[in-house]
Amino acid sequence: MFARRTEGINASFIRDILKLTKEKNIISFAGGLPNAELFPSARFDEAAHAILSSENTARQALQYGESAGYKPLREIIAKSYKEKDNLDIDPNLIIITNGSQQALDLLGKIFLDKNDNVLIESPTYLAALQAFSFYEPNYLELELQNDGPQIDKLNEILNSTENIKLFYAVVNFQNPSGITWTNEKRQKVADILQRTNKNIYFIEDDPYGEIRFEGKRQKPMRYFYKNTILLGSFSKILAPGLRLGWVIAPDEEVFQKILLAKQAADLHTSEFTQMIAAEFYKNFNAQEHINKISSVYKKQKECMIESLKKYFKEQIRFTNPEGGMFLWVEFDEDINSLDLLKLSIQNGVAFVPGEPFYAVNKKTNTARLNYTNACCDVIEEGVKRLKRAFDSYIKTL
Amino acid sequence: MFARRTEGINASFIRDILKLTKEKNIISFAGGLPNAELFPSARFDEAAHAILSSENTARQALQYGESAGYKPLREIIAKSYKEKDNLDIDPNLIIITNGSQQALDLLGKIFLDKNDNVLIESPTYLAALQAFSFYEPNYLELELQNDGPQIDKLNEILNSTENIKLFYAVVNFQNPSGITWTNEKRQKVADILQRTNKNIYFIEDDPYGEIRFEGKRQKPMRYFYKNTILLGSFSKILAPGLRLGWVIAPDEEVFQKILLAKQAADLHTSEFTQMIAAEFYKNFNAQEHINKISSVYKKQKECMIESLKKYFKEQIRFTNPEGGMFLWVEFDEDINSLDLLKLSIQNGVAFVPGEPFYAVNKKTNTARLNYTNACCDVIEEGVKRLKRAFDSYIKTL
Repeated sequence: MFARRTEGINASFIRDILKLTKEKNIISFAGGLPNAELFPSARFDEAAHAILSSENTARQALQYGESAGYKPLREIIAKSYKEKDNLDIDPNLIIITNGSQQALDLLGKIFLDKNDNVLIESPTYLAALQAFSFYEPNYLELELQNDGPQIDKLNEILNSTENIKLFYAVVNFQNPSGITWTNEKRQKVADILQRTNKNIYFIEDDPYGEIRFEGKRQKPMRYFYKNTILLGSFSKILAPGLRLGWVIAPDEEVFQKILLAKQAADLHTSEFTQMIAAEFYKNFNAQEHINKISSVYKKQKECMIESLKKYFKEQIRFTNPEGGMFLWVEFDEDINSLDLLKLSIQNGVAFVPGEPFYAVNKKTNTARLNYTNACCDVIEEGVKRLKRAFDSYIKTL
Repeated sequence: MFARRTEGINASFIRDILKLTKEKNIISFAGGLPNAELFPSARFDEAAHAILSSENTARQALQYGESAGYKPLREIIAKSYKEKDNLDIDPNLIIITNGSQQALDLLGKIFLDKNDNVLIESPTYLAALQAFSFYEPNYLELELQNDGPQIDKLNEILNSTENIKLFYAVVNFQNPSGITWTNEKRQKVADILQRTNKNIYFIEDDPYGEIRFEGKRQKPMRYFYKNTILLGSFSKILAPGLRLGWVIAPDEEVFQKILLAKQAADLHTSEFTQMIAAEFYKNFNAQEHINKISSVYKKQKECMIESLKKYFKEQIRFTNPEGGMFLWVEFDEDINSLDLLKLSIQNGVAFVPGEPFYAVNKKTNTARLNYTNACCDVIEEGVKRLKRAFDSYIKTL
């Protein structure tokens, strides 16, 4: 009755957990929500009013729009790469999408036939797996080290495997691991891909890159590797509710294919919310707003790191991200984080077990912790509860 | 390099024409845009302000939301079917989409394997062909008569064809033909489908149903046939720029599949624009607004019909829709409307040739005219120009 492609698809594990955490008085490190206190609601209110109270802009905002998106917003995006990375982006190669999630779907749609190979990080972003899996690819995993993916494994795969269409990665403050690829690693991967001559497209998914709170901004993969399709999002720097992301094609040919897929998928993204974002960038200092978010998240991350150190001492390993919203915990190998989650919920704290972030080889002793949705006191209390759950769990082993 | 499914997909013919018509001083019957003068911008401005100026609603509007959509809006939709059609719809079976176009894509995705059969009207809505064609189905055409599709042909196809997954139709004021299925035809089709026991899902795409300006509202196919997936849209009754449509699953199983596809496609539709629509329905008389639209479109349609009669006399045939935005012209068989279009543009008027509205058997002597975007004087002038182009065209035959 249903198409074959739906067979392997399961509901988002995280969404199920999130439902659970709403029911009780639980401290949640499970979500992936930006801190709603930082949404620039008043600015958006002004912008919406400016747009809707003038006849011309109101009609444009509310009418059907171009499939590629609102031109001034595409120009703002291009300009931002020039300023931050000295990267020249042609606004005519940008397509506005409903969050970057839609870009993942459109790219899966135009590139992937059944059993095509896709290189991914291990762990990787689980909603990318969801989007791609509808197109039934085969996944090849590269384990993440602290500075990016394993290079040996990459070489090995490239030498032994035909028909690799895509390499998907979140190179800054990855969801779920918090890991950032260094410039050196990026250069190395780019060189290797270039040499293979296999015409692999690199999908650089970068929703968090601007939320850096320490260390130096690394250059986009797009800078190192020509065949890069660069994705961005306003969800973390403005607000997810606008549903605005973007995809930058490497050339006109790929652009046209994505555009056709976008047209067929939903004609275009709301011109109204695009105009609100553009108004925001025109009238306010976006960088100042982003700095504010970064400084709040920095504090929250530090609280979580301190609490983990304080309560767990040497019992667990975890990453220390320089930006973004998540850190990654590795427990000893005999610990199954799904079992730990059950105990944790009883103790009043939730997180996401690592399993759904793997496509093939699942490390069941891992977990993702989000730190952007609680103040320091709550974070400490949550970690304390996690430790209590952990202690009662290891007694059962 | 690209997936096989992209091979048959071409750019929207209409969008190319629309670009052309923007360049010159042309009267366009080519678009499919609702009349922007009727957008309730001031009401939306009030609604947006109410939402964004209160902390709780602002945070909800701007945060990630549920994949199925904003519950109060889903309840408003369900209630509206109860009032208009005495039809009981469970709001929990409704999913909010980015216009009904997205619903077409999601349904193609969950139902269609390559070479699955899809029943369609001939002509049919061309953007549905675009959405479905990415999933590589085979189309079976049922010619439209004035009261709905050919019944004989339907029986013939059902008796001779296996593996029919979907029957797609726009049963009210169809785009492009303006034709409405009568209740009798709906009942007949439902009876036949029921009897076949082939488990065919009927996709009832109904973006125009509320824009009826004469005659009696017909019952939704959903009323006659249980396996109906009902699509609706706020694009024609509020504004396309909100990007809000909906899909109503017939049961929980189909609902869950659509929901998973929606999650993978873009997580969810903007809660902000959904809340604006819900505010509008809560605070204003939506029916009054819809009546206003209908009465303007009625006048515009009448002007077009009169002008066509006045200038073309008996030289062409055309439909006389009881609602919606389009009428359909059939020229004599030796006339190719694509050639006529070229001359028409030289004469300062544009329309959409019928060809792209057919999947298999293309009638090249047809055309779609939109009447909702020009006042009566302009409509008459446009028809006059069309006649001028027509006269010079037939001289070349």
